[in-house]
Amino acid sequence: MKQIYKTLGALAALALLTPSAFAAEAPKNIIMIIGDGMGPAYTSAYRYYMDNPATSQVESTVFDQLLVGMSSTYSSGTQEHHTKKTYVTDSAASATALSTGVKTYNQAVALDVNDKPLLTLMEYAKSIGKTTGLVVTSQINHATPASFVAHNTYRYNYDDIADSYFDNRVNGNFVADLMFGGGQKYFIRDDRNIVKQFVKAGYQYFDSFDQLSKFDRLPALGLFASSGLGYTFDSPVKYRLLKMVKKATKLLGNPDKGYFLLVEGSMIDWCGHDNDIACAMHEVDGLAKTVEYLKDYVDKRDDTLLVMTADHETGGLSIGAQGVYQWKKDVIKQVKHSMTSIISFLLEGQDPAKLWQEHIGIEIDDKGLAQIVAAQKTAIKAIDESPKEDAEKLKAARTNIRVKLITQVSDVLARLTLTGWTSINHTGADVQVFAHGQSKALFNGHQDNTDIAKKLFKLMGRE
Amino acid sequence: MKQIYKTLGALAALALLTPSAFAAEAPKNIIMIIGDGMGPAYTSAYRYYMDNPATSQVESTVFDQLLVGMSSTYSSGTQEHHTKKTYVTDSAASATALSTGVKTYNQAVALDVNDKPLLTLMEYAKSIGKTTGLVVTSQINHATPASFVAHNTYRYNYDDIADSYFDNRVNGNFVADLMFGGGQKYFIRDDRNIVKQFVKAGYQYFDSFDQLSKFDRLPALGLFASSGLGYTFDSPVKYRLLKMVKKATKLLGNPDKGYFLLVEGSMIDWCGHDNDIACAMHEVDGLAKTVEYLKDYVDKRDDTLLVMTADHETGGLSIGAQGVYQWKKDVIKQVKHSMTSIISFLLEGQDPAKLWQEHIGIEIDDKGLAQIVAAQKTAIKAIDESPKEDAEKLKAARTNIRVKLITQVSDVLARLTLTGWTSINHTGADVQVFAHGQSKALFNGHQDNTDIAKKLFKLMGRE
Repeated sequence: MKQIYKTLGALAALALLTPSAFAAEAPKNIIMIIGDGMGPAYTSAYRYYMDNPATSQVESTVFDQLLVGMSSTYSSGTQEHHTKKTYVTDSAASATALSTGVKTYNQAVALDVNDKPLLTLMEYAKSIGKTTGLVVTSQINHATPASFVAHNTYRYNYDDIADSYFDNRVNGNFVADLMFGGGQKYFIRDDRNIVKQFVKAGYQYFDSFDQLSKFDRLPALGLFASSGLGYTFDSPVKYRLLKMVKKATKLLGNPDKGYFLLVEGSMIDWCGHDNDIACAMHEVDGLAKTVEYLKDYVDKRDDTLLVMTADHETGGLSIGAQGVYQWKKDVIKQVKHSMTSIISFLLEGQDPAKLWQEHIGIEIDDKGLAQIVAAQKTAIKAIDESPKEDAEKLKAARTNIRVKLITQVSDVLARLTLTGWTSINHTGADVQVFAHGQSKALFNGHQDNTDIAKKLFKLMGRE
Repeated sequence: MKQIYKTLGALAALALLTPSAFAAEAPKNIIMIIGDGMGPAYTSAYRYYMDNPATSQVESTVFDQLLVGMSSTYSSGTQEHHTKKTYVTDSAASATALSTGVKTYNQAVALDVNDKPLLTLMEYAKSIGKTTGLVVTSQINHATPASFVAHNTYRYNYDDIADSYFDNRVNGNFVADLMFGGGQKYFIRDDRNIVKQFVKAGYQYFDSFDQLSKFDRLPALGLFASSGLGYTFDSPVKYRLLKMVKKATKLLGNPDKGYFLLVEGSMIDWCGHDNDIACAMHEVDGLAKTVEYLKDYVDKRDDTLLVMTADHETGGLSIGAQGVYQWKKDVIKQVKHSMTSIISFLLEGQDPAKLWQEHIGIEIDDKGLAQIVAAQKTAIKAIDESPKEDAEKLKAARTNIRVKLITQVSDVLARLTLTGWTSINHTGADVQVFAHGQSKALFNGHQDNTDIAKKLFKLMGRE
């Protein structure tokens, strides 16, 4: 047995050095999954969130079954200093690392530090004749998917990036044959109707989720919301990512040269930015159910690799907080709405006590209630006083008010559930790497996020 | 190549099922390392802490080189409810999981949920004729090492646990042939001098670190401090763990039946409890240098397995905090003393501005200084007013005062360095698993902390 381990070690080492050895065992299809913001504490938390309290052990999750390693996520720099390393990445720089194998600065989309466009995995897949697709729960031109299809100096240039989805070509072909997610307002604008252009170019298009079943061929474009699809938590339609991915795998079928499919659980990160643990658990569950389906899908063939990671950690989430050796997942399970909804209700002037009882569902103490009442009062007063004549200033003021209100509500929820948060933005902890199917062993152990892309490029035969 | 992967998979699956297959490839020597409290953000932080800012990439660490998987750390329950699962473990329950392969309740030392003693890895190693040792930077009877040598319902029964180090035997033999760390006050007491008993039984004993070189045979007992060895950060002697481990590997030599050695970087956790990032980085560095040495040591032979993990995460550490996409490691590197020292200076009445300049070394803003001045004033007043006639009450009051003061100082340090903390105790995130040398592949992927012990028992041939 020892000899076999050694042989394997030698071959694995060879495989790491020579692209041809990579190509020899290359999977035909590659499914790359990104859990946006899903740092290590998120998957641990999800395991405990799903735990059956009646058993003495904690049941394992699909993340446990597929874990193979971890990845570092730092970026090359900031907008101001492209090459002054920062240990906390944004979603564009990390997506660029994952889509091109090259470090770049925060907010850059598939450009290097000198703003030169970088070849992306999806562009390369298209150039060698693979079918390509992306399925996300944000707008399809959000930072992560954008870094596979477009090139831009600033991730928030949404219109410009949407234009690139049509204009950026690989040997005359569109980069993505299948696109499911949100983003109508960026693709159907007064100045340009990109959806119309895609339809004219042969894409099948539907614009509501209940028409998903109508897709019956490629190329396909589905924009199911004006912007992102919103939180699963607040939506009457459950498991949207799973449903879109099922349809995508059906439409992709079994093309001669295989396919490259990008899947993103986009909204996990948004819950993290809101320091909203209940929301995060719902979104991670949405991703987990999708990965369970894809694991089975991969198991049924021997030509497909699934590789999954997070682009970064969001929020500095911890299981347990404030010195207590407990995490109250039963309390979290009772929460009925996302933080976004709760904030909206509060800004509409709803009575906090009633709101808490009807829409949040967990018991609140006097201290917590007083904190919410005061925060609501301050927020409403600030909105009344905000500069309405200047749209930009009003937007900034409202964001600021919203963040302050979230901080207060999440402080109360954190205390009642023993969940910890340290930031409303990203943090720099390494994230996990998961893999399944053909060549999965290549992702074992520690790697940088750029290494993941480099390995995938090699598996597709790029020298 | 594909065929070989499949063959390996089949053999690995077999190995997981049959203890005899395990035994066939069993390493002769096992070195088990525990980084107390060293959750995933600690090793990421250490990489960035050590990063050379002059290079465009971030240099990898020994932790990156040895990472193979992750481990869950939940415990079976609390002192009150032994079987009501808690997702946040204490160090005794997690050490028991790692030393026996069985879940127990927080604060229990190598007992099951019914308080029945559990066979530990060190006891089993001794029973099959292996030489045994432990090297830690805490007192040697602290929760982690205690769970390998003793059995007790409550980890803080330090005297009782120290007694067990002499009284608990395996076929008449002491459990550990080598013990290096601190703890004189528990082993040399008015009611019992256990050191004297060990010496009478043949142990070589020295009680100061500068006598480490004098050890020249087994059995050996070195207690180099009254309690724990204290922080590396505040000590004039650097790399104490490395020096003790070097001596230990020399003394252990190459016994016929091999050895089992436990190594703990104990103080990382204590820095975490103090929310002290500079202290944590120094302790992780102490462990890293030790692991670098042990990696080389393992590389020079083909009969030794090194396996390392953390027992849990401490503090809810995050790299970056408060919404900023940065972590100021350069500022952290300027800090000159541990939080413990800083708190002592403040309680002694030292002027905060002067103290900050001379002993902390990083620039403080007016807001921060005002916060420290106010916290110092409150703390000193509280000490003056604390109930001096009752020793127990005084101790509790002082702990409370100390915690409050730490919270304020760490709040300022966190703001200035962009480090996040959510608790002064443990959190429930999965921890990393690292392995090197023979049979290391058995630790790939996700596992529970009990699985680590189960695999080591199997490798030692226990059915």
